[in-house]
Amino acid sequence: MRAVDIIRKKRHGGELSEAEIQFLIDGLVDGSIPDYQISAWAMAVCCMGMTDKETAALTLAMAHSGDTVDLSQIAGIKVDKHSTGGVGDKTTLIVAPLVAACGVPVAKMSGRGLGHTGGTIDKLESIPGFRTELSRADFFAQVNDIGVAVIGQSGNIAPADKKLYALRDVTATVESIPLIASSVMSKKIAAGADAILLDVKAGDGAFMKTPEDAARLAEAMVSIGNQVGRRTVAVISDMDQPLGRTIGNALEVREAIEVLRGDGPDDLREVSLVLAGHMLVLGGIAPDITAARSRLEAAIASGEALRKLADLLAAQGGDPAVTEDLSLLPQAPIRLPVPAPADGYVLGIEAEAIGLAAMTLGAGRATKDDQIDYAVGIELSAKPGDRVRKGDPIATLYVQSDDDRAASAIESVRSAYRLGAERGPDRPLLHGIVQ
Amino acid sequence: MRAVDIIRKKRHGGELSEAEIQFLIDGLVDGSIPDYQISAWAMAVCCMGMTDKETAALTLAMAHSGDTVDLSQIAGIKVDKHSTGGVGDKTTLIVAPLVAACGVPVAKMSGRGLGHTGGTIDKLESIPGFRTELSRADFFAQVNDIGVAVIGQSGNIAPADKKLYALRDVTATVESIPLIASSVMSKKIAAGADAILLDVKAGDGAFMKTPEDAARLAEAMVSIGNQVGRRTVAVISDMDQPLGRTIGNALEVREAIEVLRGDGPDDLREVSLVLAGHMLVLGGIAPDITAARSRLEAAIASGEALRKLADLLAAQGGDPAVTEDLSLLPQAPIRLPVPAPADGYVLGIEAEAIGLAAMTLGAGRATKDDQIDYAVGIELSAKPGDRVRKGDPIATLYVQSDDDRAASAIESVRSAYRLGAERGPDRPLLHGIVQ
Repeated sequence: MRAVDIIRKKRHGGELSEAEIQFLIDGLVDGSIPDYQISAWAMAVCCMGMTDKETAALTLAMAHSGDTVDLSQIAGIKVDKHSTGGVGDKTTLIVAPLVAACGVPVAKMSGRGLGHTGGTIDKLESIPGFRTELSRADFFAQVNDIGVAVIGQSGNIAPADKKLYALRDVTATVESIPLIASSVMSKKIAAGADAILLDVKAGDGAFMKTPEDAARLAEAMVSIGNQVGRRTVAVISDMDQPLGRTIGNALEVREAIEVLRGDGPDDLREVSLVLAGHMLVLGGIAPDITAARSRLEAAIASGEALRKLADLLAAQGGDPAVTEDLSLLPQAPIRLPVPAPADGYVLGIEAEAIGLAAMTLGAGRATKDDQIDYAVGIELSAKPGDRVRKGDPIATLYVQSDDDRAASAIESVRSAYRLGAERGPDRPLLHGIVQ
Repeated sequence: MRAVDIIRKKRHGGELSEAEIQFLIDGLVDGSIPDYQISAWAMAVCCMGMTDKETAALTLAMAHSGDTVDLSQIAGIKVDKHSTGGVGDKTTLIVAPLVAACGVPVAKMSGRGLGHTGGTIDKLESIPGFRTELSRADFFAQVNDIGVAVIGQSGNIAPADKKLYALRDVTATVESIPLIASSVMSKKIAAGADAILLDVKAGDGAFMKTPEDAARLAEAMVSIGNQVGRRTVAVISDMDQPLGRTIGNALEVREAIEVLRGDGPDDLREVSLVLAGHMLVLGGIAPDITAARSRLEAAIASGEALRKLADLLAAQGGDPAVTEDLSLLPQAPIRLPVPAPADGYVLGIEAEAIGLAAMTLGAGRATKDDQIDYAVGIELSAKPGDRVRKGDPIATLYVQSDDDRAASAIESVRSAYRLGAERGPDRPLLHGIVQ
């Protein structure tokens, strides 16, 4: 078998066999196929596409290119959850203890943030003492014990995906639905869950800018899951504005706790309940989404969900008292109001701009080696549909000092708000379900 | 400027600017753009195409990436000739002295053969004593003196094309009309002629399998020539069977001399006269193709053309007496007949198979470092339209020994002949002219 023949086949729109795809991935990982052949193949895939069968074969080849996690030591149907990434997306902090409280075992590996999007692991690490590195044995034992564990991605998970993604990033071959879908699913499959709930974000702050593109990506990922025997459901949720009101690590933990207390912003609570509902159904705990919803609302009302978060924190070295006393979370010393630039209705808030403003304040990383300041961030007081008056605060910056960086972030947040004389139409929070 | 942005633009079907194309070619030559980005771009070009303007910009950037030859020291309109490569294609050996005899200065750099196609330089080197390396000054002086010189490609001509071609070869990005056209034309433009006559081959033994594809390539190359100010005409000639009757270096020189004597096979003479006719028109020697034809036929009939070949040989150290005595050419000791496998009419002869059979006998190179045996080759006695009887010789192999290699070549030649009970339709020798 020769790489050049496989590339040529794809360039002419042919369907590659499992063996051909395996040959490419093996060669990528062991270095026997040079980068210039892999990148030419990736571009041919971008231009000519891949069939569902090819996409599944690529996903499995990448999933099996390194360590795979065997969750069979954990009883029950393990359900994983993955978000394609957004701004203010703290749903995992809510959903993991919530579904665990209802009986779905959650053995979750999460990632760190980069660029304008945050990461669950960074958010959890803002809780004093919380450890995100556990041995595999402790990880399994904790899920069997309290039903939930959330750790950083450890080991050599899907190294082929890591190599391929690095190459795609510099060869303009990121934008391909089959390649994005197989990248996400290869890591989820290697992580070992029985079922997968995907939160595919659509909008300005997401990789997929339109609900239609997000649906195509969702369909590709669900098709992979079904082909490789992992039940997979995708929720397409809106990311045209940040989710909830807070952006920044400790601020997001605070808001997640508020939702688990039965409070918190409507949009965040609703998306979390929908995601958790599908996880209960996938986990065999509820027969349908309506029954799941009742069960989840009861777990919040009874305090079970919040107690499960406290158990999770305690098990991983964090201070469980934060669930009762939010002032134990890191606090920024200075709060700066962002004044409305004019009278009017909020029509929209550009999610990507808000995410980048929070990053420049220190809440996120521009490059992988940047240090995070857990206390800083942004709270949005005015959301789409709200009426504001010129000069009124529409948002608050949480910062360490009132400096040039803060001034520039204020300007960025102001310009991220689109105002109009008339109230705009409501944008739906959820665009659809693919299963 | 970043390579990844240029690749992305092309991947989405955008038109690259001259500056963007220049940036890619500069980076390719100085190594600042890695191969994996160049190959991704090349694949994007294969899939999305290039406009005529982009193709011309790429051609010029590659033509100027190394040495360029300034032929202004040679008087008159210099006309170059290029064949896209075929089997038994010895037209340069005929056309160069023929048009020089009529007054067109020919300052020609030619290539060596690889794979199933031969090269003019190898054929000329089969003539005892002939040298294909001349200093630039001697090259110019010889053309001014006797009107013709044919040398190997020397100096650092279009190094960007050399690098890009090597990468395309291993990334399945050879098959792209704009990339093929710019590769050929960049070398022709760097070689300095005022006008260019292209012989674009179509058929089984050529890179372009159909006359339609050959016409598209011809149009792309003529468009480049016109855009960069070099008058360019393309003849689309047939390569579904070998041209003439001989394949192999000294055998092809013999056949070329026969045509210059007024003999030789009809197809070879006709294609040579058509190519030479366009060169006379491009060179301003004849007002039209009809006048050119009369002039060329007169040059053959009077012996001027053959004498010009003798002058060329003498000027470059070869034995001019070969034009009078063909037995001075290298002779293979053994001739093996290829018997017809059945009664019938010859419908076709697969050119590529014949070229490969000649290569395995030693007439060509499988890899760049292989040594050539000038004496060996194949002579086809039966051509399409001829009636043959089972067992009659349809071809002759010229070999050094009657060994396994010869036996296998006999089998290859036999199977390259397609026979039928009825005479097939004549395939045209010429498929069109693009100018």
